[in-house]
Amino acid sequence: MASAMLKRSAMKSMVGSFRIGVTRSFASVSVGTDLVSSAPDVSLQKARTWDEGVSSKFSTTSLKDIFKGKKVVIFGLPGAFTGVCSAQHVPSYQKNIDKFKSKGVDSVICVSVNDPYTMNGWANNLQSKDTIEFYGDFDGSFHKSLELDKDLSAALLGHRSQRQMHPPVYVLNHNWVCPWSMNM
Amino acid sequence: MASAMLKRSAMKSMVGSFRIGVTRSFASVSVGTDLVSSAPDVSLQKARTWDEGVSSKFSTTSLKDIFKGKKVVIFGLPGAFTGVCSAQHVPSYQKNIDKFKSKGVDSVICVSVNDPYTMNGWANNLQSKDTIEFYGDFDGSFHKSLELDKDLSAALLGHRSQRQMHPPVYVLNHNWVCPWSMNM
Repeated sequence: MASAMLKRSAMKSMVGSFRIGVTRSFASVSVGTDLVSSAPDVSLQKARTWDEGVSSKFSTTSLKDIFKGKKVVIFGLPGAFTGVCSAQHVPSYQKNIDKFKSKGVDSVICVSVNDPYTMNGWANNLQSKDTIEFYGDFDGSFHKSLELDKDLSAALLGHRSQRQMHPPVYVLNHNWVCPWSMNM
Repeated sequence: MASAMLKRSAMKSMVGSFRIGVTRSFASVSVGTDLVSSAPDVSLQKARTWDEGVSSKFSTTSLKDIFKGKKVVIFGLPGAFTGVCSAQHVPSYQKNIDKFKSKGVDSVICVSVNDPYTMNGWANNLQSKDTIEFYGDFDGSFHKSLELDKDLSAALLGHRSQRQMHPPVYVLNHNWVCPWSMNM
């Protein structure tokens, strides 16, 4: 499932020509959405150790700084240290990082409603920090602004990213959202 | 600091005679508080892997089951994978586990406003799972009920346990709270 997600034909559609042949959308995010404008004043928190957090004065990174002038693949996951995310989702992106890069993707970003220290611990645990950028959304404001949040309290997680088994994938050319369906 | 917290004289006061010489209290929790009655309908979530979570049907553990008929040392920390907690607080309890046990303490419990999968990942990272019981308070209901929550958004953590550098330590004889001050 996860490997199929990244098959060549889909990659071609996704990061090659940015040709969008689907109208599928995720909550408030759809083709043409300006992600930065849709989530004004929202920042993410780059994964780091606590000591790095202190020395950075607990700085955050604006969406503008993350996306401006870049091609970015970003995927949201319901939680650090959750099973399918750890075993399949992150590794599937990690395994295909060279393909993304060859298509001009500047950054592959994993975001989750976790604090940046937990995200860092998880990234180290997965040995993925060198290839994927991990960002926390500790208060869920990124996901809430984009209506991508979901109550996963039944799974002892609280409010997290709404896509569990099939994380949303967005390819952005600058700020503009180009969603990609796994069915493409 | 953390090691001093567990020095012998304090241990004697704390887990030996349960002699309480201070009136210091933590929020709504003070000497004689019935913790279970103070946080009715509140459960904690024992640290586990995601797969264990699924197979347990995402079960939780009631405070009654955790505390009833037991002597328990419980300490709250602001977050998994935060620096002082990882480097000092948890190891200080781990190092003194035999002393606690020799004083009749049944369980030493670490609780934090995190989900149980993150708590499990952190416990494994600290190699502390065999000696300390880790519980998540994923929605913060335990800390909120006891007025022990604090907004630590400035440190990119959100609402967590209010004690950062000096975690609250409670020794319970059945449900009854016997707070211990580091100054005792």
